[in-house]
Amino acid sequence: MNLQRLLAPRSIAVVGASPDRGKLAGRPLAYLDDYGFSGTVFAVNPKYQTIGRFSCVAAIDELPDGVDLALILVPAPDVASALDACGRRKIPFAISIASGFAEAGETERQVELQEICGRRDIRLIGPNCVGMIVPAGAVTATFSTELRNRLPKPGATALITQSGALGNSLLQSFNAHDVGLRAWISTGNEADLDVIALAEQLVADVDTRVVALFVEGFKDGIRLMPLAREARRQGKAIVVLRAGRSDQGRVASVSHTGKLAGATRVWRGLVRQGGLIEVSSLDEMLDLLIAYEALGAPRQHEPDGLGVLTISGGLGVLIADEAAERGLPMPRFTQPTVSGLRALLPPTMSVANPVDTALFTTEDGYVRCAELVLEDSGIGTLLLVLTSLAHNYTRLMPWLIELAHRARASGRHLAITFLSSSDQLRADQQLALAGAGALVLPSAERCVAALAQRLAARPADVPAAAVPKGSEAGGATSVAARAGVPEPAQQICHTLEEATAFAEGVGYPVALKVVSVDIPHKTEVGGVALGIADPEALGRAWGNMERAVRARSPSARIDGYQVQEMVTEAVELIVGCSHDREFGPVLMLGWGGIFTEVVDDVAFLALPATRPEIAQALEKLRVAKLLAGARGRPAADTQAAIDAVLRLSNVFLTTPGLVELDVNPLLVRPRGRGVVAVDLLAIFASDLPAASDQGQPR
Amino acid sequence: MNLQRLLAPRSIAVVGASPDRGKLAGRPLAYLDDYGFSGTVFAVNPKYQTIGRFSCVAAIDELPDGVDLALILVPAPDVASALDACGRRKIPFAISIASGFAEAGETERQVELQEICGRRDIRLIGPNCVGMIVPAGAVTATFSTELRNRLPKPGATALITQSGALGNSLLQSFNAHDVGLRAWISTGNEADLDVIALAEQLVADVDTRVVALFVEGFKDGIRLMPLAREARRQGKAIVVLRAGRSDQGRVASVSHTGKLAGATRVWRGLVRQGGLIEVSSLDEMLDLLIAYEALGAPRQHEPDGLGVLTISGGLGVLIADEAAERGLPMPRFTQPTVSGLRALLPPTMSVANPVDTALFTTEDGYVRCAELVLEDSGIGTLLLVLTSLAHNYTRLMPWLIELAHRARASGRHLAITFLSSSDQLRADQQLALAGAGALVLPSAERCVAALAQRLAARPADVPAAAVPKGSEAGGATSVAARAGVPEPAQQICHTLEEATAFAEGVGYPVALKVVSVDIPHKTEVGGVALGIADPEALGRAWGNMERAVRARSPSARIDGYQVQEMVTEAVELIVGCSHDREFGPVLMLGWGGIFTEVVDDVAFLALPATRPEIAQALEKLRVAKLLAGARGRPAADTQAAIDAVLRLSNVFLTTPGLVELDVNPLLVRPRGRGVVAVDLLAIFASDLPAASDQGQPR
Repeated sequence: MNLQRLLAPRSIAVVGASPDRGKLAGRPLAYLDDYGFSGTVFAVNPKYQTIGRFSCVAAIDELPDGVDLALILVPAPDVASALDACGRRKIPFAISIASGFAEAGETERQVELQEICGRRDIRLIGPNCVGMIVPAGAVTATFSTELRNRLPKPGATALITQSGALGNSLLQSFNAHDVGLRAWISTGNEADLDVIALAEQLVADVDTRVVALFVEGFKDGIRLMPLAREARRQGKAIVVLRAGRSDQGRVASVSHTGKLAGATRVWRGLVRQGGLIEVSSLDEMLDLLIAYEALGAPRQHEPDGLGVLTISGGLGVLIADEAAERGLPMPRFTQPTVSGLRALLPPTMSVANPVDTALFTTEDGYVRCAELVLEDSGIGTLLLVLTSLAHNYTRLMPWLIELAHRARASGRHLAITFLSSSDQLRADQQLALAGAGALVLPSAERCVAALAQRLAARPADVPAAAVPKGSEAGGATSVAARAGVPEPAQQICHTLEEATAFAEGVGYPVALKVVSVDIPHKTEVGGVALGIADPEALGRAWGNMERAVRARSPSARIDGYQVQEMVTEAVELIVGCSHDREFGPVLMLGWGGIFTEVVDDVAFLALPATRPEIAQALEKLRVAKLLAGARGRPAADTQAAIDAVLRLSNVFLTTPGLVELDVNPLLVRPRGRGVVAVDLLAIFASDLPAASDQGQPR
Repeated sequence: MNLQRLLAPRSIAVVGASPDRGKLAGRPLAYLDDYGFSGTVFAVNPKYQTIGRFSCVAAIDELPDGVDLALILVPAPDVASALDACGRRKIPFAISIASGFAEAGETERQVELQEICGRRDIRLIGPNCVGMIVPAGAVTATFSTELRNRLPKPGATALITQSGALGNSLLQSFNAHDVGLRAWISTGNEADLDVIALAEQLVADVDTRVVALFVEGFKDGIRLMPLAREARRQGKAIVVLRAGRSDQGRVASVSHTGKLAGATRVWRGLVRQGGLIEVSSLDEMLDLLIAYEALGAPRQHEPDGLGVLTISGGLGVLIADEAAERGLPMPRFTQPTVSGLRALLPPTMSVANPVDTALFTTEDGYVRCAELVLEDSGIGTLLLVLTSLAHNYTRLMPWLIELAHRARASGRHLAITFLSSSDQLRADQQLALAGAGALVLPSAERCVAALAQRLAARPADVPAAAVPKGSEAGGATSVAARAGVPEPAQQICHTLEEATAFAEGVGYPVALKVVSVDIPHKTEVGGVALGIADPEALGRAWGNMERAVRARSPSARIDGYQVQEMVTEAVELIVGCSHDREFGPVLMLGWGGIFTEVVDDVAFLALPATRPEIAQALEKLRVAKLLAGARGRPAADTQAAIDAVLRLSNVFLTTPGLVELDVNPLLVRPRGRGVVAVDLLAIFASDLPAASDQGQPR
């Protein structure tokens, strides 16, 4: 699929267009007229010969060749036949805005559209959506009310939203802040094209720099991680606002769209793995997009140091806190900066970063302080906190514009905010500064958040994850064997001599367990002994167990006594592979044993995952300190653990019918001594009740 | 101290007043005149007989009786003599605004003011502050520029800020949102009165409902917890914005005020212990104060259910997420609400909470939906998300006002926000709604945050913490004994028979250690055996150890072999008492043993702490799951652990010269079997190097 003809159609047909601009079905044509779409437009409506300056045909079949996009405005019951007609006419793309499909319980009606798309080789946006806008070509295939006001200016930010209303609200804000838009696509019910398919195309689009998504759940989440890796390689940010992060939100989401968002922990893991930039509110998303618009995409080695000039020392401290929490350093100034500031400020004032100029400086002095900080070699961004208390905004404006230009020319940035929410520059002044490349936001903490999040999308060298080749089926034991992960040595023995010989071979300590199908709860009859340290102890344990079992389960048939190697000095991990409903195969990795439950120290990754992704996930866990050798313990064989995790997940991905694979604990021995999988559990689809749809691969 | 005469002075003297309104020293008198302070005002300035309509005396000594407050405007070098004169004249309160004291390195000059306060029994605000405002009496003892604009209206919110500039910026916002102010006091350098002393008075003040603090560090933090407990008893919220939460912020703070904020973890512990409401930005503080102003203080059993009406299902889900993260429930509607909504909305629309009315309803229908939700018995607050897309604000206004009144009359609340940041009501409409008791904030997430934080300040039954009586000094051993916390049983034995008898008495397993001053590293010579399980094993260990020690340290004098009880099946805690620089005696409580470092599961409390405070802190830790008996383990003796912690901290508080007391681990055995302190470390001031000031009690 190539969306270039969707984003830049030569010709658009509006099916069911109305000449009445006041009606919803009249708007798209009116917008195409008003904003001057450069291609050809056809209306389709049997009642008219022309609508405005556009020619009108009676039926889709009568459209000429070369129509790239059909905007279908007819109501739900008529969409299927219109889409089918578009397909017959070889139109490659269609948009349906009608509601009354899956969101209203009319699932079959939506499945029909999906089938037509497949059969006719036509790609559909919607139904139940608000349409699409591409300002660069004045492509206004939408009924969005915001276009009554203004078409956003062309730009590098692509916006894809499942919700039409939220998308429209973001469009309003794009206009208010004069943020440039590459395209807005509202995906609605996603009968065919979904958020990820569209994002893939926009990541590949040369004119797109950042792709912002509002999603309530991914239709085909397994494609998210490859998309994220590709975006990072290209240095394009993917910003995601995801609704349904909490149980309360998921309940609300199901009743809204019928989509069930996946578990929060899986989502958080994927955000980290893929380097996605997650925001938690519309304001936060908008602030970040404004920062992208004003400052451009971050360069790979762009300096991240923040220098701050404020008239309130108290606010300076708050900014330093916020920057620390967001991971933005505020470096000490270099000596030339310190000397320069010292000459400008009263001797009792501190010249550290943040600089508190209080009310002591003249306007010239203030300007000079700012210039000094911006020239400091450790500073990437200068943040000015303005207040009408101290600054004459009108007099400062020309200089601020010049400073913004100068910052941009030297590869640095200027950010501007205000002491108080009732202390802002006028809207036209803010737009002028944004136009000169300065970031202007209403509060210091919003500035700091947007600056930090923008830097999180630096381009990175990201290897692709290899999808392993398919393999043959097998049981739980062969799973461990194929993964090449050793299990503890064990043997069923029938005499103490046999047991002692085996224990000598594997080394003490060992565990001893009675083997009998008649004894389900071994511990209760004295049938388990752990930590047996030497031959004498083994002899005693053997004797005690024989007596205890005979006394308490006199009728049980004893098939022998299992002697098992006990691994000491090991760190316990938990490794689980399963199928997430939303994101497909996922890996859970964490601190194992009893700590899984108590410490809750686990991370999730989408599969296939790369070796660096697994290593990074492991590094961020608390158990990493134990693996590294906390409190004088030996460092563990972390490399062997990562190898085992990779091999286990590859076996999981390539074994047909395997729906879950768990190892808990995976014992990681001291460096050089490898790992042991103690309890390996493999669940096959055939093990599950037939009616269940839990954990089925998708 | 009683601040009533400060908040409502009968007479104010302005020392160093100028007749020039354009000058800083001219402003206070001008404001007292403009806003009509009802008491008597005297200027003090040898150059004038009168200033404006106020009489002027040449010197402080010439002031008549009955002056309650002196506002001292003279520069730093002259403040001490002015303050002294005020004291001689029996004026109880003074404010000094001059800078040039500790903040500029002039510490001695500030100490002099402190001494005068003590000697003359006069209480001082400042120096280096912006003064004080009490709108109810038009007390404008300040040079704040915001009063050029407007005096905030009288209200129930008290504001105490160390920073003058941030206080002034908040004042601007109070005026912009028409929030009522009980008093604003800018404390500056706090030579005498500090934030806590003033907050104590305002918590006791009948006209104050909420006390908001901006602090960079507490001068006398030991008084914070008693203040917090008193506020909770009275149902008054203490809202704190604290700068210097991060290391980066602390560095900035030191260079700004010379105050070193304490460690973040201690602070977080105290916030939780005291039920303080912490906000992290000026916007967040203001939102919460606006919510207090509009909705009043929370009642003890006020319903917290949130009902939401939106035209964007996507935003509804985001709101549900935000509410869940803030702990605000969104209950299911009761049957009457569901039936009522069902009759109003199209059959395909969901009638669950949040209600998505989309664009389907008429204005009448929308109004009726809102009324139904507000009448639902589970709903405490109705949140409306308005958008000019769907709503005619002018037509809705009268009904919104009526709905706000109706909500208030039924003990419920109305909150209003907007789909987009460029979609707000006009400022005058917002003020009218606020006046009717509705909360209006620019975004849904800010609404949810403010609603949740307001409810966090419900009045609570809080017992006072008893300060234990003093006691005599003693060493580490007597510390454990006086706390009544058992240590493991142990005995130095000289024969195997003696050792076996002792081990039988305390129960197996035991540890065996060689005792010799000549053997510093016992393990290296085979001088330590752990986990000895029975008499046979003890016999073998004894023999092995005798042989090994003799072979490897033939010349060492052996003083015997120590047999020590080994506690099994216990949960390890860490308990530490120390002196925090900012908050005085504090208790650290957490998961002990190697988990202290790896899991980092600790909480801090101010001492003395109450039993419920300790129990609550323990409950919030991860180790609480182990104490409760995770994965089939027996439940631990948590009550005995809390008793031991209380007794240890009382011993810490009452033992002269004891600067640190640590137990790690404190072993908590199964329920009914108590605790054992394995390693108790008591550090006395006399143990420390003489020059050190670390950890000294204050």
